[in-house]
Amino acid sequence: MGSTQDESLSTFKILVATDNHLGVWEKNPERGNDSFETFEEVLAIAVEQDVDFILLEGDLFHENKPSRQCVLRCMELLKKCTHGDKSVQFDFLSDAAENFKHIKNPVVNYMDPNLNIGVPIFSIHGNHDDPSGLGQHCALELLSSSGLINYFGKTSDLKDINIMPLLLEKGETKFAIFGLSSIKDERLFRLFKEGKVKMLRPKEYEDKWFNLMVLHQNHNKQCGMINHIPESFLDNFLDLVVWDHEHECILQAQVPHESAPDSFHVIQPGSSVATSLCAGKAVPKQVALLEVFKRKFSITPVDLKTVRPFVFAMVSLSDHDLDDATSIMENSPVENFVEEKVRDMIKESETQITGHSKQPKKPLIRLRVEFSNEAQMFNVVRFGHKFAEVVANPEDMILFKKEKKEVKKDELGIDNDAMDAAFNDMEVEETRVEDLVRQYFAGIENQVQNLSLLSERGLCGER
Amino acid sequence: MGSTQDESLSTFKILVATDNHLGVWEKNPERGNDSFETFEEVLAIAVEQDVDFILLEGDLFHENKPSRQCVLRCMELLKKCTHGDKSVQFDFLSDAAENFKHIKNPVVNYMDPNLNIGVPIFSIHGNHDDPSGLGQHCALELLSSSGLINYFGKTSDLKDINIMPLLLEKGETKFAIFGLSSIKDERLFRLFKEGKVKMLRPKEYEDKWFNLMVLHQNHNKQCGMINHIPESFLDNFLDLVVWDHEHECILQAQVPHESAPDSFHVIQPGSSVATSLCAGKAVPKQVALLEVFKRKFSITPVDLKTVRPFVFAMVSLSDHDLDDATSIMENSPVENFVEEKVRDMIKESETQITGHSKQPKKPLIRLRVEFSNEAQMFNVVRFGHKFAEVVANPEDMILFKKEKKEVKKDELGIDNDAMDAAFNDMEVEETRVEDLVRQYFAGIENQVQNLSLLSERGLCGER
Repeated sequence: MGSTQDESLSTFKILVATDNHLGVWEKNPERGNDSFETFEEVLAIAVEQDVDFILLEGDLFHENKPSRQCVLRCMELLKKCTHGDKSVQFDFLSDAAENFKHIKNPVVNYMDPNLNIGVPIFSIHGNHDDPSGLGQHCALELLSSSGLINYFGKTSDLKDINIMPLLLEKGETKFAIFGLSSIKDERLFRLFKEGKVKMLRPKEYEDKWFNLMVLHQNHNKQCGMINHIPESFLDNFLDLVVWDHEHECILQAQVPHESAPDSFHVIQPGSSVATSLCAGKAVPKQVALLEVFKRKFSITPVDLKTVRPFVFAMVSLSDHDLDDATSIMENSPVENFVEEKVRDMIKESETQITGHSKQPKKPLIRLRVEFSNEAQMFNVVRFGHKFAEVVANPEDMILFKKEKKEVKKDELGIDNDAMDAAFNDMEVEETRVEDLVRQYFAGIENQVQNLSLLSERGLCGER
Repeated sequence: MGSTQDESLSTFKILVATDNHLGVWEKNPERGNDSFETFEEVLAIAVEQDVDFILLEGDLFHENKPSRQCVLRCMELLKKCTHGDKSVQFDFLSDAAENFKHIKNPVVNYMDPNLNIGVPIFSIHGNHDDPSGLGQHCALELLSSSGLINYFGKTSDLKDINIMPLLLEKGETKFAIFGLSSIKDERLFRLFKEGKVKMLRPKEYEDKWFNLMVLHQNHNKQCGMINHIPESFLDNFLDLVVWDHEHECILQAQVPHESAPDSFHVIQPGSSVATSLCAGKAVPKQVALLEVFKRKFSITPVDLKTVRPFVFAMVSLSDHDLDDATSIMENSPVENFVEEKVRDMIKESETQITGHSKQPKKPLIRLRVEFSNEAQMFNVVRFGHKFAEVVANPEDMILFKKEKKEVKKDELGIDNDAMDAAFNDMEVEETRVEDLVRQYFAGIENQVQNLSLLSERGLCGER
């Protein structure tokens, strides 16, 4: 893409990043800088790649009320990156008073005659930095009020959502960005079901626009039917959806991987920092370079090099023949085994060293140890002392979990077909647990089937 | 001043305001806007008067951690006033890296090539908005980081204070501003006593500079010897001192009214909003227009017209012949008397109506009622209901105070001369209550005088 001169002049080049979670672990002397270092790297990539703009997709801040220091550090980084003489090469065609109507002085920052903006940033809010408190403002507004970012996609009417896209134009490319800042999944699910979410497409040159949707919601079914947004809810006219909130980085341009019509692609850049120590956060962190020429696009993942090495592993003690015996004088065989495993993981973390001068070297280590017998457990904090100098999280490297006895699903005696029918028929906006139970019994009709105790998972519909 | 063409080109015109206390009473539906309306007026006066810059002297925010809405409203007002094409007519000669060394990117905002600043603001912090929390940042830094104000006078070393002045030049006038942001009075008192507060004067053209000092400390003795800064502590080379923190507006240019050498003038602009309902806050609110040509200056007070009317009065029931009798059916004679008094005060408040469209009309009323007999009290909240539509603070108009029986000071039997001697001799940095008591007894030596119980006031030295 962008091979000919004309194409290049009409190609939007955008850095897409999300879930930077500035301020996470801020008070931890070892890890307090991590989120800032990587955010600085993200911004530096944007400058280096000479992008037209940066698209941030929520959870810029980890805390709803970030510390003053956190906001200040963020402002300083943004000012350094966004201010400058580089001239912005695209036009802003939509009505800023509509796109930014939640702001007193609604103007796109690079067209503010009193600011010299070289790299504009557009951002929606996430679930961590959503509006709260007096006047329902969010932390991003501290940035947009001073012209550091363009904050869009804030919904003022939570009963009827009209998404006004940002309309941008660069040469021959017309680019519409439909932003929807984070809303409680259940509420948004209902609004979609009720047809209360409308995307306002420009009438003119309707087929010429590259339509991007940006949202910060659960993508996958978590627990339950209604606390995520199925791809099938989204309009078919979209070309690409950037789905955020889930922290795993999935950046290969891909066709929808669920039941939606084969109409748009979905990418999920994932977080730039490990906010918690689980398997999904141990995949390499990347940002996306999105290039758009007319209605074609390409995605180039860019590895982040300042991210702290993180190795996650699981081990089940019952798979290993270990003596439970402990004595006060020496470590138990289990502890020795775990120690060896941790040392292997530390060694493995070295493969994640990138050579970037600002990458913290001490790795995050998380070993999930499944045990069947409490006698196998040991004091993990004391255990951590041995690694205080080489690991970033010595105190919580080891997570003991009791092995679960597997229960075969059909032993529960739930009529899954009746459950499915109940869920599929329901008018979501009216669903109450009572109705669900009634429908379930209506479904099984006169079958000779006993009432089983429904677990929470059963009620939520995940089978 | 400024009568000839040359003088005019060399005359600094500065709006001086302080203690705006943005966000005070923010959650009160009637009074929540007051601080913002008046701050907007202050900024508008600056624009209308075409000043060179605005000097704010602390307590811009009422809360150390102002609400997000409060910061946002402040940012919006500042942006509207300070951004613009007006060209700044004075040069900044001092080293911004020194004046603003607490900021990541220390530059005076109107010389930042990426900002278009027409009306620069310089501000110190007060005791309400002083640094706190992680990294010891103050709320003003949210404004200075985004280039909305120039925050100066922050002291990083609380053991040794070197005040680097802002050095400004306009035509023939050289203007040095020594800013000292709020520090605990007791600590600053000690530092002055120890000679640890130094003002770094420019050597060049030493006698040509107009030297202004800005500080936000207790000016008058409150309770005690050491929790205010005596004028005698300040250097004689100063021409003018702007003293803030105390809310009463005293704007006539005046000679020092205490023991300081007859060397500098002191003004005290006072707060722009009534933060509490006492006599000192019921004087008219003003800001100062300060004009400086070479080493001459003039002060022009400017009335603020959006300030809510406020009438304060005191009444002693024992001065009036009122029957204490109450009945359930009708108001007591005292209540009727107080009601009449309040109605007079409301009438009096009308004289404070300025005609400004944004001035709130419902007055603040505070009547302090001194009683000698509890039976004279009545329910002030129920009383307030009658005035709910005409008064801004119906629930706390009336403050009952028990009349004090006057005790003649010398009945206490304290040897005031010995107390004075003890205070004057003491090395302040070493003072402990034990020493003070010892010194007191040393002072009275062999006099036949009994030990009296010292009240707190006695201990603090206020007699």
